[in-house]
Amino acid sequence: MDFAFDAKTEELRGRLLDFMDSHVHPAEPVLEEQLAAASDPWSPPPIVEDLKKAARERGLWNFFLPGEHGAGLTNLQYAPLAEITGRSIRLAPAALNCAAPDTGNMEVLAMFGSDEQKKRWLEPLLAGEIRSAFAMTEPEVASSDARNIGTSIRRDGDEYVITGRKWYITGAMNPNCAIFIVMGKTDPDAAPHQQQSMILVPRDTPGLTVKRGMSVFGYTDGDHGGHAEVLFDDVRVPAENLIAAEGAGFAIAQARLGPGRIHHCMRAIGMAERALEMMCRRTMSREAFGKPIAEQGVVQDWIAESRVRIEQQRLLVLKTAWLMDTVGNQGAHTEIQAIKISTPSAVEWILDKAIQAHGAGGVSQDFALAEMWAGVRTLRLADGPDEVHKRSLARRELKKYRTEAGR
Amino acid sequence: MDFAFDAKTEELRGRLLDFMDSHVHPAEPVLEEQLAAASDPWSPPPIVEDLKKAARERGLWNFFLPGEHGAGLTNLQYAPLAEITGRSIRLAPAALNCAAPDTGNMEVLAMFGSDEQKKRWLEPLLAGEIRSAFAMTEPEVASSDARNIGTSIRRDGDEYVITGRKWYITGAMNPNCAIFIVMGKTDPDAAPHQQQSMILVPRDTPGLTVKRGMSVFGYTDGDHGGHAEVLFDDVRVPAENLIAAEGAGFAIAQARLGPGRIHHCMRAIGMAERALEMMCRRTMSREAFGKPIAEQGVVQDWIAESRVRIEQQRLLVLKTAWLMDTVGNQGAHTEIQAIKISTPSAVEWILDKAIQAHGAGGVSQDFALAEMWAGVRTLRLADGPDEVHKRSLARRELKKYRTEAGR
Amino acid sequence: MDFAFDAKTEELRGRLLDFMDSHVHPAEPVLEEQLAAASDPWSPPPIVEDLKKAARERGLWNFFLPGEHGAGLTNLQYAPLAEITGRSIRLAPAALNCAAPDTGNMEVLAMFGSDEQKKRWLEPLLAGEIRSAFAMTEPEVASSDARNIGTSIRRDGDEYVITGRKWYITGAMNPNCAIFIVMGKTDPDAAPHQQQSMILVPRDTPGLTVKRGMSVFGYTDGDHGGHAEVLFDDVRVPAENLIAAEGAGFAIAQARLGPGRIHHCMRAIGMAERALEMMCRRTMSREAFGKPIAEQGVVQDWIAESRVRIEQQRLLVLKTAWLMDTVGNQGAHTEIQAIKISTPSAVEWILDKAIQAHGAGGVSQDFALAEMWAGVRTLRLADGPDEVHKRSLARRELKKYRTEAGR
Amino acid sequence: MDFAFDAKTEELRGRLLDFMDSHVHPAEPVLEEQLAAASDPWSPPPIVEDLKKAARERGLWNFFLPGEHGAGLTNLQYAPLAEITGRSIRLAPAALNCAAPDTGNMEVLAMFGSDEQKKRWLEPLLAGEIRSAFAMTEPEVASSDARNIGTSIRRDGDEYVITGRKWYITGAMNPNCAIFIVMGKTDPDAAPHQQQSMILVPRDTPGLTVKRGMSVFGYTDGDHGGHAEVLFDDVRVPAENLIAAEGAGFAIAQARLGPGRIHHCMRAIGMAERALEMMCRRTMSREAFGKPIAEQGVVQDWIAESRVRIEQQRLLVLKTAWLMDTVGNQGAHTEIQAIKISTPSAVEWILDKAIQAHGAGGVSQDFALAEMWAGVRTLRLADGPDEVHKRSLARRELKKYRTEAGR
Repeated sequence: MDFAFDAKTEELRGRLLDFMDSHVHPAEPVLEEQLAAASDPWSPPPIVEDLKKAARERGLWNFFLPGEHGAGLTNLQYAPLAEITGRSIRLAPAALNCAAPDTGNMEVLAMFGSDEQKKRWLEPLLAGEIRSAFAMTEPEVASSDARNIGTSIRRDGDEYVITGRKWYITGAMNPNCAIFIVMGKTDPDAAPHQQQSMILVPRDTPGLTVKRGMSVFGYTDGDHGGHAEVLFDDVRVPAENLIAAEGAGFAIAQARLGPGRIHHCMRAIGMAERALEMMCRRTMSREAFGKPIAEQGVVQDWIAESRVRIEQQRLLVLKTAWLMDTVGNQGAHTEIQAIKISTPSAVEWILDKAIQAHGAGGVSQDFALAEMWAGVRTLRLADGPDEVHKRSLARRELKKYRTEAGR
Repeated sequence: MDFAFDAKTEELRGRLLDFMDSHVHPAEPVLEEQLAAASDPWSPPPIVEDLKKAARERGLWNFFLPGEHGAGLTNLQYAPLAEITGRSIRLAPAALNCAAPDTGNMEVLAMFGSDEQKKRWLEPLLAGEIRSAFAMTEPEVASSDARNIGTSIRRDGDEYVITGRKWYITGAMNPNCAIFIVMGKTDPDAAPHQQQSMILVPRDTPGLTVKRGMSVFGYTDGDHGGHAEVLFDDVRVPAENLIAAEGAGFAIAQARLGPGRIHHCMRAIGMAERALEMMCRRTMSREAFGKPIAEQGVVQDWIAESRVRIEQQRLLVLKTAWLMDTVGNQGAHTEIQAIKISTPSAVEWILDKAIQAHGAGGVSQDFALAEMWAGVRTLRLADGPDEVHKRSLARRELKKYRTEAGR
Repeated sequence: MDFAFDAKTEELRGRLLDFMDSHVHPAEPVLEEQLAAASDPWSPPPIVEDLKKAARERGLWNFFLPGEHGAGLTNLQYAPLAEITGRSIRLAPAALNCAAPDTGNMEVLAMFGSDEQKKRWLEPLLAGEIRSAFAMTEPEVASSDARNIGTSIRRDGDEYVITGRKWYITGAMNPNCAIFIVMGKTDPDAAPHQQQSMILVPRDTPGLTVKRGMSVFGYTDGDHGGHAEVLFDDVRVPAENLIAAEGAGFAIAQARLGPGRIHHCMRAIGMAERALEMMCRRTMSREAFGKPIAEQGVVQDWIAESRVRIEQQRLLVLKTAWLMDTVGNQGAHTEIQAIKISTPSAVEWILDKAIQAHGAGGVSQDFALAEMWAGVRTLRLADGPDEVHKRSLARRELKKYRTEAGR
Repeated sequence: MDFAFDAKTEELRGRLLDFMDSHVHPAEPVLEEQLAAASDPWSPPPIVEDLKKAARERGLWNFFLPGEHGAGLTNLQYAPLAEITGRSIRLAPAALNCAAPDTGNMEVLAMFGSDEQKKRWLEPLLAGEIRSAFAMTEPEVASSDARNIGTSIRRDGDEYVITGRKWYITGAMNPNCAIFIVMGKTDPDAAPHQQQSMILVPRDTPGLTVKRGMSVFGYTDGDHGGHAEVLFDDVRVPAENLIAAEGAGFAIAQARLGPGRIHHCMRAIGMAERALEMMCRRTMSREAFGKPIAEQGVVQDWIAESRVRIEQQRLLVLKTAWLMDTVGNQGAHTEIQAIKISTPSAVEWILDKAIQAHGAGGVSQDFALAEMWAGVRTLRLADGPDEVHKRSLARRELKKYRTEAGR
């Protein structure tokens, strides 16, 4: 057992931290200016492309993707880098071509895509030339139970015909979002986990309507493509757009979610570190009742608790990454659920305290805290609410006692 | 001791509930349409004026104001009515001319205004013809400590000259907001609580700039006038615009805050009732894992806890109202702080669970939950963060043991 | 609506508070001495009888019992008196002949007992001459589901034969405990809530064995009769010992529990007041890091939160009492469950903080805090764990939405 | 970074787990019988000596002690072994000669003792022939601030004279406890952290009175020597009994506490694992409302949360052990405080839920849960309450922002 990062990780962390200081943090006020001046609320501000160029030149690119197509890092090597990008959540992940949902989509294409699919969609994604979306959640059903999915993908000759309604399709409001991976049912009569398939639908396919941007609290997240409601009305695509095989949708979704959760959690820890930093700085610089707010016992309690929770969450996420690398996503099932359950709550708590320490500023557009809060709060229900994951984790924990109890 | 409402309250509750059913709730979708179609994001949608007219005709008007100028209700009689308006928070308080910050401002004018001030500002406010703002919070200091206030109100001959910067001035983005009550320091060298004064500043006074709308978790609250940053740059008003006397600002603020907190808390309880209703309805109508979500034990735990917390908070607020009526705001000091501390947290918890029960819909613009959440979360820091009020309450609690301990 | 106590309550409160000061609090150290010197750990210390005599002389007696047999108070009148007795939980309730489980047993006998049963058992209980026990909980089953009860009560000629095992039978280790009310099944094939009956079993009946005292976090509670494991091995009693009728057991239990919960909750609030007092006094008298501990912000946070929670709980309990008086136990069902769920948790939290403020002393025998904590913690599972009550409350809350959802 | 145990740890874990199964767990009921039959409540039951013999034969001995005197393990190697002993907290640590306070005392003697002191006291302690106590906490002061200590150690010729009162001196009620390490002040006028010294006082020294056993909730912990109040009344010992040097007391205490906290936390995690196991087993085997309690959603929530919290705490403790091994106790300061703050709370939460799942049994002497709870609750205040450690941790976190803020 050894808690030190390996040499490669340390080297990349050093370079990434330099890049954050030299490029990313200075770009934060520029982003605000460009957003304020933008005519189209859904187009990415130019600063993002500038940062992408600079990052790619420095080899800070596609860290998230293991294997030949990406940077070839393990999950354990990538995790601390993802954390660093979380410190500037609106810029750094996109700058490094490591932003959701493209990351998961690239993973799907790298693992399950045909050569043709890889050539047509994976390559421009890897190059950061286009963006993509992942269309799974539906407004009409509890999507946490995959069996509820209502969108149909029906074979018709050489084509598949897709009909359904999706929402909270992140990134889809971005006009550069060129391709959708859509989850639907090819066979509602199959076994529960073999009913679903995934299929590629280019944005300009007739019948696909990006209807409106959904909000997250009051945020549209327009700068990174928003969260769209998307209608699929008899949308026809060639049969070869199917990913892997009919009935593989559930398995692909599972494969996609493991790394996705790790990434979200690591970035969330980066957000927590930034929030703690802001909380310390603010309370040290403001006075009330004759002393810096930082000397109030309750504020010190928040700061200590924040530090402790960050340390706990980081270790749990790192161990999960290590397990995924050593025993695979299946072997890391409990830990992946554990971080899905615990990281967003822990970080939400820290952000809440940082907001409180900033007074009205904390809920405003002048600090990043409220927006980070909204993002992290949403993680508690995105990709299945915490309650579903706890239920599943508990049932696995109980399994070993089941026989013993004769059940 | 008797927990039943009196006859007058019951009668008004009945009429108000009818009005909610016949006018307010049906107006909710209309509000959304008008907002979506509006060209000016800061103007109140016409439906509000329609509702005001209807409410006034029915005598559902100015309930908040005791005495001759208002409906003449006690706090205890008004509280359950305010709760009902909280069930449709964006429409009902405004419809009944019972919306903050006008309510507090009318109270100030009714209690402390000169005849001339009453005639010029109180009358049109009571008639619902204009709106108003209360300019206290400042971005540069911890405003929870009144001694920190930086805005100056300087006497210069027959005028006062006001210089300072305020933010989160609710309602000020509304072009109909005609008058500001501004808190500032007339004498920085006086005893701590006699340095401040309040003064009336008409919106069109030269030097007053409404600079921008501040956000609350992404929401601009544009439909009820937003929360403005306002600059006062050598703003000159006649000396008779001063309210009461120089040095009276702190005392007026205290007098204003007691009822204000009761009102906020009662409306928050109405929001909680609505959220609980939505949580029950949603979880009863959606299925996952073969049964309605409402049959999941964790969801039932939320529902039970929500009911219990609502009952507790309502009673504490009602008792506080009763104390204010019977022993005055000063005698109700502990209880006023107690509800300021506990109601927003309790309601926030309930809204959080209702959001979780709605999945992605919970954070969206399609349900009122996320927006209510943002409003209630902000109450935890508006008008002094909870922590300041807890500190003050504890010190009062400790007072009786102080002598005993020889301190 | 009126939050003032009525004149009778105020008068009794005054007299009871005097008695606490003159007799009960001075008896607390005497109790400790007598317990330390006692040869039999299960016999009540003599000071209790002294206090009973003094209380009875002053008419401070049987307050808990409405109607002709008792003091004739309403629940709303008794509640604030019960709270006061909670401030000296080991002495005051017993001194006033208002201690569980006698109170509930007397209620059962007063409401459902035959004249003969009243004469033989209720009268000496009302006179404080004997003690009694209520034998319901069983070690082998989840007793929160009444259908699980395993003890059988079988008719055999003119007798009933009782067989079963009970535990946590409070008071039964006391040699003065003369009579047991036993819950068992007379007809396992009847409808679920008509299977149970209650029957009177004198302590000296052959076959009844008081086996051992059960602990509560290390405490035997020997001074008030402990909590016994009791075996019933073909115990025969005359048929007229049955209370009311066969099959009435569940209904009697329900009738008994409503007031019982109110009493427990009110006394718990008295404990919380005492704990808060001790916390204030202790932290004001000790110093660390150069100032009284009471000036640490975290301690002030505890004190403020404690005050707020006490006020909330008291109001909820008082309203519940008022409902029981005005609409009956059935109409107060939700509120009775609400206090059962929320009061022990709230008071436990306050006791935990008071313990923490006392350092090692807090967990010791030198302060009453740890023992009060153990008692209050146990209320979270006694008479059905909180979780069962929450589930039931939620299902009632959901009922109104059930039809709407077509379920 | 690598989360696997090394080969030596795995080997020892295997052997220890075997020993737990073959010897320790079977001894648990024997312990209960011997305790019930014991005439002296303070003498260790014979089964402990049997286990010690068996453990020592198997080389499962003195694992806690690094270096030549002990088993030579690193903290990181010992931590998972300590966790295993926590699963049978009343037997396993003592069986392996790894029980507090002997462990800390042996560390002090090994690090700071003179050759003579080692020979006389360390050797029999290492051999498990005697027990020892550590006398630091005082009843009269907030001992969390070392400057408050009131016991005096005064030089008088060739002797030191000790006067003071201590309590919660763990192990001192055991007649085999032969030696006390006493903390007191040799120079009240020195710099704050150089006033204290430590000195060895044999039990039979005149003037030393072991006055009474203190309770922890209702437990005396008699089977492992209780927690004594000890009076030192002009107790004279030879000058060579001083450990290290005058004024070294605070530094020795600090050196002693780091490993002590790790050990406590690791054992607490073992308790949590046992509690989770018991919770699963119990809820799987009991039914209510027609299904095993384990299928109630709220219970599954507890189980999932427990698993998550255990994983978090274990990792944080292991990382702390690794830091102590690699950068020393000083470099691990933040992490040592972090586990001191977070482990007891987390484990307390889990024990609380396990108790709740056991109903009345949970608070009884028939399951280990309530007693484990009392022990873990006490850790929240032993060796300085959590609040003091949070304050210290926060101040260190804030340090880096202090200069920036010009303070």
